[in-house]
Amino acid sequence: VGSWTLGEIAARLGGRLHGDPRGRVTGIRSLAEAGPDDLSFVSRPDHRDEAARSRAGALLAADAGPFAGRNVIVVPNPYAALAEVMDLFHPPASPEPGISPQALVGEDCDLGVDVSIGPFAVVGRRCVLGARVALRPRVVLGDDVRIGADTVLHAGVVVYPRTVIGERVTVHANSVLGSDGFGYAEAGGSRRKIPQVGDVVLGDDVEIGACVTIDRATFGSTVIGARTKIDNQVQIGHNVQIGEDCVLVAQVGVAGSTRLGRGSICAGQSGVSGHLTIGEGARIGAATAVLQDLPAGAFVLGAPAQDHRDWKKQQAALRRLPDLLHRVGRIERTAITAANGAARGTRRPARGRARRHGGGQ
Amino acid sequence: VGSWTLGEIAARLGGRLHGDPRGRVTGIRSLAEAGPDDLSFVSRPDHRDEAARSRAGALLAADAGPFAGRNVIVVPNPYAALAEVMDLFHPPASPEPGISPQALVGEDCDLGVDVSIGPFAVVGRRCVLGARVALRPRVVLGDDVRIGADTVLHAGVVVYPRTVIGERVTVHANSVLGSDGFGYAEAGGSRRKIPQVGDVVLGDDVEIGACVTIDRATFGSTVIGARTKIDNQVQIGHNVQIGEDCVLVAQVGVAGSTRLGRGSICAGQSGVSGHLTIGEGARIGAATAVLQDLPAGAFVLGAPAQDHRDWKKQQAALRRLPDLLHRVGRIERTAITAANGAARGTRRPARGRARRHGGGQ
Amino acid sequence: VGSWTLGEIAARLGGRLHGDPRGRVTGIRSLAEAGPDDLSFVSRPDHRDEAARSRAGALLAADAGPFAGRNVIVVPNPYAALAEVMDLFHPPASPEPGISPQALVGEDCDLGVDVSIGPFAVVGRRCVLGARVALRPRVVLGDDVRIGADTVLHAGVVVYPRTVIGERVTVHANSVLGSDGFGYAEAGGSRRKIPQVGDVVLGDDVEIGACVTIDRATFGSTVIGARTKIDNQVQIGHNVQIGEDCVLVAQVGVAGSTRLGRGSICAGQSGVSGHLTIGEGARIGAATAVLQDLPAGAFVLGAPAQDHRDWKKQQAALRRLPDLLHRVGRIERTAITAANGAARGTRRPARGRARRHGGGQ
Repeated sequence: VGSWTLGEIAARLGGRLHGDPRGRVTGIRSLAEAGPDDLSFVSRPDHRDEAARSRAGALLAADAGPFAGRNVIVVPNPYAALAEVMDLFHPPASPEPGISPQALVGEDCDLGVDVSIGPFAVVGRRCVLGARVALRPRVVLGDDVRIGADTVLHAGVVVYPRTVIGERVTVHANSVLGSDGFGYAEAGGSRRKIPQVGDVVLGDDVEIGACVTIDRATFGSTVIGARTKIDNQVQIGHNVQIGEDCVLVAQVGVAGSTRLGRGSICAGQSGVSGHLTIGEGARIGAATAVLQDLPAGAFVLGAPAQDHRDWKKQQAALRRLPDLLHRVGRIERTAITAANGAARGTRRPARGRARRHGGGQ
Repeated sequence: VGSWTLGEIAARLGGRLHGDPRGRVTGIRSLAEAGPDDLSFVSRPDHRDEAARSRAGALLAADAGPFAGRNVIVVPNPYAALAEVMDLFHPPASPEPGISPQALVGEDCDLGVDVSIGPFAVVGRRCVLGARVALRPRVVLGDDVRIGADTVLHAGVVVYPRTVIGERVTVHANSVLGSDGFGYAEAGGSRRKIPQVGDVVLGDDVEIGACVTIDRATFGSTVIGARTKIDNQVQIGHNVQIGEDCVLVAQVGVAGSTRLGRGSICAGQSGVSGHLTIGEGARIGAATAVLQDLPAGAFVLGAPAQDHRDWKKQQAALRRLPDLLHRVGRIERTAITAANGAARGTRRPARGRARRHGGGQ
Repeated sequence: VGSWTLGEIAARLGGRLHGDPRGRVTGIRSLAEAGPDDLSFVSRPDHRDEAARSRAGALLAADAGPFAGRNVIVVPNPYAALAEVMDLFHPPASPEPGISPQALVGEDCDLGVDVSIGPFAVVGRRCVLGARVALRPRVVLGDDVRIGADTVLHAGVVVYPRTVIGERVTVHANSVLGSDGFGYAEAGGSRRKIPQVGDVVLGDDVEIGACVTIDRATFGSTVIGARTKIDNQVQIGHNVQIGEDCVLVAQVGVAGSTRLGRGSICAGQSGVSGHLTIGEGARIGAATAVLQDLPAGAFVLGAPAQDHRDWKKQQAALRRLPDLLHRVGRIERTAITAANGAARGTRRPARGRARRHGGGQ
């Protein structure tokens, strides 16, 4: 999609260029794939050797030192710079505005300018879509859904009635927003459904992966805070409150009524039980199961979750446990010998007890 | 949706009213949200303080004692009463009966009275739909699917051929019933698919969340017993038999040919291996991995699953394990000293062995 | 679907028939369900007793010995033979070729002979579909998707632009191929999306379950090797490379940029962290969390994953840990006694230290 000079790119990024400002690149590729016409990037110190071997025509890096004689644009955060420069070469493809003749739009909807609605999409009654909202093919909106400007819902997304979605939100294919929370009253071994009459509210700049499910609240709202990023196959229970700027990696589950503080991070396949409060900036490791409240800034691992240092110590100790069992068995046997030895020197010792310990092994 | 007097509500619930029978409420809200025109509920003893502070005009509670001077409807199970009274204020919205002109219905189908089929739904050949069945937009039914009266399939649900669904069943958006079981014969490092020619049978009053997958049987049927409730993103393998009145919380997986006894509960993110038998009323905790049969009434936690008491003891002990390693090291060193001391009093003790233990640390 | 003589079946399988070659069977059923007109199979030695009790008219078995007097077709791998003979009785049902009048096909597509495109399917521009490709109802293909001959995409599958799919591939309902990878650059507590401009490539004979998500690469390709089988609700991150002949059971997650060697097996609900290299033929047990590289042929269990033997030893030891704590406590108390005894015989021993140990319990 065109080409850019290194001078132009450095200017755009506010970076310092080592090399020829008139040099041109026509694409961005990974270190392994890049050729002389490509820009690449060194996002981590341990990629330096790979970067040195790369055939890339120019590099985004935090430090030009290791790359003497090459074209390097020095920026403090090469990965963030990558995000910015990517748009030069891969401008986001917006679907053409307009409503497909194969789409159905209900009565009394309010559609903003340049809205795009794909084929076989169904929009309920009284929906409000902001400017440039794009509903890709087969999206279904229930009645009374409100969506802010510049939001994109990919193919197959289902949005239940009364859901509220902010601006610049992306939801990937086949995700479901606003399905019923899992609430039943038990009586006599059977369960009666509690009608789920609340809704789901997504803040601005939220991004949601594919096959994600976010349940509507029993009463009130299930809330996803602004700028929070949710990966594929994440499950959010009813009445959950996710703060702003959180990150939920793939296959995470957050059970009903739990609150995640601003800036929390849940790594892949982790889970948080219901009715918990997780403090701001908490970090929950991969496959971790959180069963209790966590304070702000906590960093936990394990199932059940513990402070990451305690967990690591216990895991290290667990590897030594089989040997420890042998060692304690030996001590018990030695204790008998030592006690016997002492007994011979003095009087009858606690020999019976020592034996019992050995027998308890 | 209208208003009701407290007398009417108490009568409907068979509850005892403390307060003004002519008092009116116009909605139901949580304790935190309710105002003077709302009914609220005290479903757990630890909500009493919140209830006392609530501005709710009336309360459903198991005991009027803590709420002197307020309007209280006393019922034995306030949460179950809530389920019942919710229907007064939020009568379930049935989609209009009728077949969308944008739906496709195959040949030789038998459609009951007041069936509702939404736009872009596809119904295969020879399907049988009971009275008032609702297929929301974009539902796909394969050939020979049978669905009982009053069942609702939400948008995007896919039902493979020959699936049988009971009465009053709900399936939420984008779930898949009857996809192929995961069965392959290995030969020489590669795998050949075993055709999956069985089906899926869902009992009456089953409820299924969003993005759930239930595989068809290799032969025979994968069965979900009546009144069983399944949350979002649950995976049920081929030939699994789930009993009646079970509860499977979000992201649970049950592997092929396993049987879950009536009334079993699988908490979130738990998993059960294949070919197992789980007894009636078993409880499987969150993130628990069941690798062996369980007797009726078992309550297990952990990965691998164990009796919950054993697991708790082990987890408590594990937290003390790093310290235990130090303690045993000290004992080993002390044993040398003590043995040496004893030795001076008598004869050469088992000093060499004691040293070896210390060295093994 | 017709009937076959035992002689015909034995010939087809290259098996040795014990019994009447003119005997006829009209179906295949499990041991429990089979009747005198059915063929059944003994796939595992522990099914012999059930097989002896089965009413099946004939058996596929590795050994005729236990079934004297019955019709038995002896083959080395009865389960593989089952896969082959199933096609006789259940020939795969291909959808009728042709493009539904309710489907939309974009400009400049290249469609092979006998392609089948179901109602409400959407095919983007410049797509290439091989011979006999079947898109079931509601499949969505983005622009520039290429699909090899004889591939079937079931209802609701969404394929993002530029995805490449091999021949004879099956993808079950509501799966998503090519959604954006989860890549963000963090700057000042917020995150900026890294555009994901790579693609997804699926090899020949790959099979993919329902509600699976496979993300497109940031750059380059996310690759699923030929003949790999992926069960329902599996998540594959961006830039992952899955080798040939791998098996990923339900609810597995593989994080970004990880490589799985040829023939690896991930059991249900297991997870593999990002940027790892898993050797050929590695086996990862159910609910296992792999946080480090694994060598070829590794067999690991646990969270975090360890060699299966080490893990089993540790789990066995963990069950003895609560008792071990008591045993060590007793030793510490005994050590005081013994030390005291020794002290009386000699001089003042390390009594204070022994006490401290006891107090530390």
